[in-house]
Amino acid sequence: MKINQFARLEVDFETELTELQRIHFIETTDIVTQSPTEVLAALLHLCYPEMPTQQGVDFKLSTLLVDAHTNTYDFIQNEHEISQAHFYNLAMQLLQFEVDLDFSLDNPTAAMSKMALPFIAAMQLTTKDLLHAWYLLLTTHTKNGQVFLDYLTTKGYFAELSKQTDLPKPLFFNGKAQAVFDTTQLIREVVYVESDQDTDHDGKRDLLKAEILRPVETDDGLSVPVLYTASPYNQGTNDEDGAKLTHNVDVPLQKKPVITPTLAELDAAQPAKVDLPPKRVPNGVATHAEQSFARESSYTLNDYFLARGFAVVYAAGIGTMESDGFRTTGDPEETTSTVAIIEWLAGDRQAFTNKTDNDLIEAWWSNGHTAITGRSYLGTLAIAAATSGVKGLDTIISEAAISSWYDYYRENGLVIAPGGFQGEDADVLAEETFSRQKQASDYYPIKADWLASLEQMGRDQDRETGNYTPFWDARNYLKQLKNIKADIMMIHGLNDWNVKPKNVWKLWRGLQSLPVQQKLILHQGQHIYINNFRSVDYTDIVNLWLSNKLMGVDNHANDILPDVLVQDNTKPETWDTYTDWGNSDAYLTYHFDENQLLEKASATNTVQFTDHLTDDAFSAYKSDYATWRHDLMTATDSPMSSNRLLFKSAPLDHELVLGGRPQLKLRVASSQDVGLLSVRLVDYGKAKRLSVSPQLISRHALDEGFRWREDDLKEFALTKASDAKLISLGHINLQNLANAYQTNEIVPNQFYDLTLGLQPTVFRLLKGHQVGVIVYATDMEMTVRGNQAITYQLDLANCSIELPLQSK
Amino acid sequence: MKINQFARLEVDFETELTELQRIHFIETTDIVTQSPTEVLAALLHLCYPEMPTQQGVDFKLSTLLVDAHTNTYDFIQNEHEISQAHFYNLAMQLLQFEVDLDFSLDNPTAAMSKMALPFIAAMQLTTKDLLHAWYLLLTTHTKNGQVFLDYLTTKGYFAELSKQTDLPKPLFFNGKAQAVFDTTQLIREVVYVESDQDTDHDGKRDLLKAEILRPVETDDGLSVPVLYTASPYNQGTNDEDGAKLTHNVDVPLQKKPVITPTLAELDAAQPAKVDLPPKRVPNGVATHAEQSFARESSYTLNDYFLARGFAVVYAAGIGTMESDGFRTTGDPEETTSTVAIIEWLAGDRQAFTNKTDNDLIEAWWSNGHTAITGRSYLGTLAIAAATSGVKGLDTIISEAAISSWYDYYRENGLVIAPGGFQGEDADVLAEETFSRQKQASDYYPIKADWLASLEQMGRDQDRETGNYTPFWDARNYLKQLKNIKADIMMIHGLNDWNVKPKNVWKLWRGLQSLPVQQKLILHQGQHIYINNFRSVDYTDIVNLWLSNKLMGVDNHANDILPDVLVQDNTKPETWDTYTDWGNSDAYLTYHFDENQLLEKASATNTVQFTDHLTDDAFSAYKSDYATWRHDLMTATDSPMSSNRLLFKSAPLDHELVLGGRPQLKLRVASSQDVGLLSVRLVDYGKAKRLSVSPQLISRHALDEGFRWREDDLKEFALTKASDAKLISLGHINLQNLANAYQTNEIVPNQFYDLTLGLQPTVFRLLKGHQVGVIVYATDMEMTVRGNQAITYQLDLANCSIELPLQSK
Repeated sequence: MKINQFARLEVDFETELTELQRIHFIETTDIVTQSPTEVLAALLHLCYPEMPTQQGVDFKLSTLLVDAHTNTYDFIQNEHEISQAHFYNLAMQLLQFEVDLDFSLDNPTAAMSKMALPFIAAMQLTTKDLLHAWYLLLTTHTKNGQVFLDYLTTKGYFAELSKQTDLPKPLFFNGKAQAVFDTTQLIREVVYVESDQDTDHDGKRDLLKAEILRPVETDDGLSVPVLYTASPYNQGTNDEDGAKLTHNVDVPLQKKPVITPTLAELDAAQPAKVDLPPKRVPNGVATHAEQSFARESSYTLNDYFLARGFAVVYAAGIGTMESDGFRTTGDPEETTSTVAIIEWLAGDRQAFTNKTDNDLIEAWWSNGHTAITGRSYLGTLAIAAATSGVKGLDTIISEAAISSWYDYYRENGLVIAPGGFQGEDADVLAEETFSRQKQASDYYPIKADWLASLEQMGRDQDRETGNYTPFWDARNYLKQLKNIKADIMMIHGLNDWNVKPKNVWKLWRGLQSLPVQQKLILHQGQHIYINNFRSVDYTDIVNLWLSNKLMGVDNHANDILPDVLVQDNTKPETWDTYTDWGNSDAYLTYHFDENQLLEKASATNTVQFTDHLTDDAFSAYKSDYATWRHDLMTATDSPMSSNRLLFKSAPLDHELVLGGRPQLKLRVASSQDVGLLSVRLVDYGKAKRLSVSPQLISRHALDEGFRWREDDLKEFALTKASDAKLISLGHINLQNLANAYQTNEIVPNQFYDLTLGLQPTVFRLLKGHQVGVIVYATDMEMTVRGNQAITYQLDLANCSIELPLQSK
Repeated sequence: MKINQFARLEVDFETELTELQRIHFIETTDIVTQSPTEVLAALLHLCYPEMPTQQGVDFKLSTLLVDAHTNTYDFIQNEHEISQAHFYNLAMQLLQFEVDLDFSLDNPTAAMSKMALPFIAAMQLTTKDLLHAWYLLLTTHTKNGQVFLDYLTTKGYFAELSKQTDLPKPLFFNGKAQAVFDTTQLIREVVYVESDQDTDHDGKRDLLKAEILRPVETDDGLSVPVLYTASPYNQGTNDEDGAKLTHNVDVPLQKKPVITPTLAELDAAQPAKVDLPPKRVPNGVATHAEQSFARESSYTLNDYFLARGFAVVYAAGIGTMESDGFRTTGDPEETTSTVAIIEWLAGDRQAFTNKTDNDLIEAWWSNGHTAITGRSYLGTLAIAAATSGVKGLDTIISEAAISSWYDYYRENGLVIAPGGFQGEDADVLAEETFSRQKQASDYYPIKADWLASLEQMGRDQDRETGNYTPFWDARNYLKQLKNIKADIMMIHGLNDWNVKPKNVWKLWRGLQSLPVQQKLILHQGQHIYINNFRSVDYTDIVNLWLSNKLMGVDNHANDILPDVLVQDNTKPETWDTYTDWGNSDAYLTYHFDENQLLEKASATNTVQFTDHLTDDAFSAYKSDYATWRHDLMTATDSPMSSNRLLFKSAPLDHELVLGGRPQLKLRVASSQDVGLLSVRLVDYGKAKRLSVSPQLISRHALDEGFRWREDDLKEFALTKASDAKLISLGHINLQNLANAYQTNEIVPNQFYDLTLGLQPTVFRLLKGHQVGVIVYATDMEMTVRGNQAITYQLDLANCSIELPLQSK
């Protein structure tokens, strides 16, 4: 077990004392004059806030050993020297570690070192040492995924304290906001923000429903910052109608006409803004909302901050239930809709108490500082909002987010499905999230217009060519990066084949020259949240970040948090820090050899494979991707054996870490006037590897406050040994050799040179492992599947792959 | 979608009015004189308790259609005839069904019929009709797994009401307790119950820690009943040390000496009770506990009842953290420990505020009525407690429970693992649950004694013979059924190969002659809870049952609830009712002749198979049970092909329902002086079948009260079509032809007759399907796996299987 903390702040002893006093672990700094035993006793007596009596606390202390023969209750009855072992035996039990299972009473710090838990060096603790060690303990993670002070909080520490004393709210400890707000008293309100758009063309500006949760203290004058989650899903989804729209992918790859537009032409071809209806004229002004809600579609990270003095706002945007407008899947109208909420929170836009009466309501409780959070589409809208440069948006936390929708649904002139969602496209997602449809009273009057709009989107997205067109150019946030004023924290899974890593990579690289703070976390998961993992203090990291960005706490978040934090793919619970991603100046280059090995310099030689499968094999693979994947990557005798070329390097003679975007150069010919190539970069070598889905460690272990909502504690575990692991992949239409928006002709059997950037990665290759490259055509999970009888040839003398090495 | 409700109570109109008045949906029965429109308006205005204003409610009403052109807000502005369609269009939207997706506005009752939702027949509603229909609506399930009134409750219906009026507490509606208790105010206490045992032989009676949650109203004099969950897991488990104890199962089947004890001799051989230390002499008396806890290891069904006026008690029993004693895995000491808590709750036993001071504390808030709930080991202890006949235990709800530990770890003279836990045994489970070990201060002084006790258990459980011995006889609750005074509700999965269905079958059959009420629910799941399913109102059933048994509500629970409720295995969301299980008087009998033999029959009518696998095949199967299962049951060419005999019936010419315990007769010879047989009964036929693990429908959809703990809504879904499905299985040691406690010799190659009862079931076989019987020896998942070169012969002329048919 390893517990990695990056958000622990080191402060000087005076500050430690001040902070201990602030949370009432000590009442006066004069305590340094007392004996260590007295002080320890006083501190320990505050560790069981759940106990109604002193006897109850004493009993709990009697269950903790300071050494094999002495319990803590007995120990503090008399003056004692407190050794390092005494203290850390006790501390480890307080942190929920078990004697003999997790550590030995003989040498607790040995186990702590292994687990990366911090401890002080003094072998005999003075009172000052003890107070310092106690401060450190309060900021150290327990066995169950929370800082010790948070654990005490879940047992009622602050709830009890606030019965006895007026706690400052918000309250900060070690640079982070503490859970001192009573979540049973949260105020829930609905407002309707008027946006500068009329996407349903009903002659009225779109009103956007926002669900607000704010601490009751705001009613008494407290101004709070906002965590805003723009989730198109959160008013419900039309799963069945979305599924009906899903496109048939068992269609042949079509020949495309040759076109050579410029990027400027694409940009100019975007639809003009239509004239806007006038703003609503306010009627009255309300201070409190007229509408509320019972249960929002919540997000545990937001719940955590609700207990810590942040308001949370959920808004689903245009086309969602009880808002106006139509869904547009990532276009500028959607950005406008996302940004409107922030403008209202900053006092720069009007909102109303309902959709009819034009009674104004202001976000008078907001301190004007907002962050957007969320994963996938939600994180995408965070990026969208940031590119607007809107005032009041201080930071975004974009998790597994799309930075350009072309990189979500397309690649190099091909329709490429998000992993797990073959046949999905922009129109499918629009229908999925068009939750106005769920309320027939609202839907019936606009049904015809909506279906027409959906049809138009179906045409504009242009599945026929797969090219980068004005439709996709309008949905490319990377064009607007220069506008960004918000600091950005990005989180992405290196095994996320849904929103592929290219999305975060391009954002990260694109931000390098901008004067904003940026942090990057890359984990080994798929398309998941990481705020409930044991091995990394992600939630603390976000707390440090938001306490700094939204509440102005001078906690050095920019300096303390690593710029790039990457979970290791070979060792469990291991996180490495780097200063950058993609600034590589060293490469490992392999050339393709005729013996289907990489790296031997090749004589001129061509090899070939055909893309056609028997009907039986084709249809079996269609319904069983796992077998297809296995046959593609590891089977030596399967229907896929002749439908791919598999190149393997010699075993590596030393470990190395890839970092960045692999570049493949191929000289290729197709037997027809169309063609596509898919490529996988694979790590070959028998090894136990991390599961890409996290495993449950403990159900309900993470209370987000005190008797508030709970999350499960999880972690990636090592699985049974496997032979191979996908590192990266890429796809290209041979009619798009230059780029995704211009097309070229393909003469059958003529060779062409292409360069293909694969999905960027950070990947540790172990000694003895082999690097593999698989070249194939149809990707059952991602490309169209015409099962065409196309034969592809590679001219090996002109094929190579360049793998960037991660620099420290 | 189908929603099956069995706990809805039909009452007369006067009662409906009284109850509507009780929950303040109407304030006077004079309401019948008002117009239907007026009454509808009044009722509807109570459906949005989350809305702070009248305008907010009006807005919500405007979102509901009564027909394609009229919303409800407009509709109730003027006097209207209210048609059946008007009302049920509205009702369906209130129940969270969607227009056009779930039902059509033209004919809402058509969809309701299909979904099994109740509606009234009147085509135009009078005020009386309307009130009757409203009562019915309040008791009808929404799309999301709760009765409409419960859904309103989760939105704050009773919370708002109790601000305006004094609600009776507890409060019953339609025979069931309602969530009117404030769960933020629960009182949490710890007491230590003194039990009549000293299982750790420390010279002091064992004190047992109990965690209590009770409504705050008990402090003002309310007496409440108790749901008690005896969970040996709930103070933590020793997973790593348990795993270390797991037994090696790759050992040969050993020849056993011939023994012929009688059952009476086994009974007499049980260990004598040792002399007990004296009771503690009470010191003082306390009214309130000295200790409390922050977060119990909870169970959502209990949480549901905490909001409804029940107290909940969790106690983990002897040998668990902060209790005294040793774990004994199901012996009478454990029953004593389980029962002690109930005796304290009934006022018949002393408990103390802590483990040292002997200050008495009574359960003065208990009404003396207790039920035990829980699944698996927890449900097992419920059965154990019931067999004591203890006063105060009015009912038990035993889910997936063991009725005899021999039927959990053994079968017919064989060590048989619970599915998924090869190598587990009584000693492993004792170590797993011995959570005193987690507290070194408590564990160190008793460590040596505990390890000795564990070793003794390892010997006594006798893995060498697998026989039914005094050890197992002491752990057979079926011997004590005659003592039972509690009414019993049993729930079991027909696909539970962990606690196998034989356990519930024997309990059900054994209770038939006793004067207690018994109800049985058999579902298609594995070893799971079913209190969060959409297709069956399990939680309501338990509410009706417990309101009757523990709160004395005259709700006809005994009569209304079906005696036997079985989930259909062929159609999703379908539940059938029967009057009994296992009272079959019709059978389907198959003889094993050449015509039914899938593999070639020998001329002599004797067929054989060998049990030995190549080392490669054996080791591959050991690490991949799924492939082994597939090869055993469906592969035609695999390493298992010659290691089994697979018999198939002709396709069935009509559908039939098996119900009861299949009996197999075999004449068999082993090539050695030892031998074992395993048998699987299989349904062959291509079909989509239900998943045995439930699928998530909606996360956090089930609030157990108002802003209280939440559960996910789940359901079994149809999976991809499969070729075969396991119906039942069984295992026998050929040295135990007569029974599990007497052994016989086996002469190599001599034929013996045996009768083997398979696991009982209820199973619908579809027309065209084939009944299959597979005879094999080593069961990779359950038996020892010596990979011995034993050849088995069957004399087909003397082999048959008798399948009981389920009677209505």
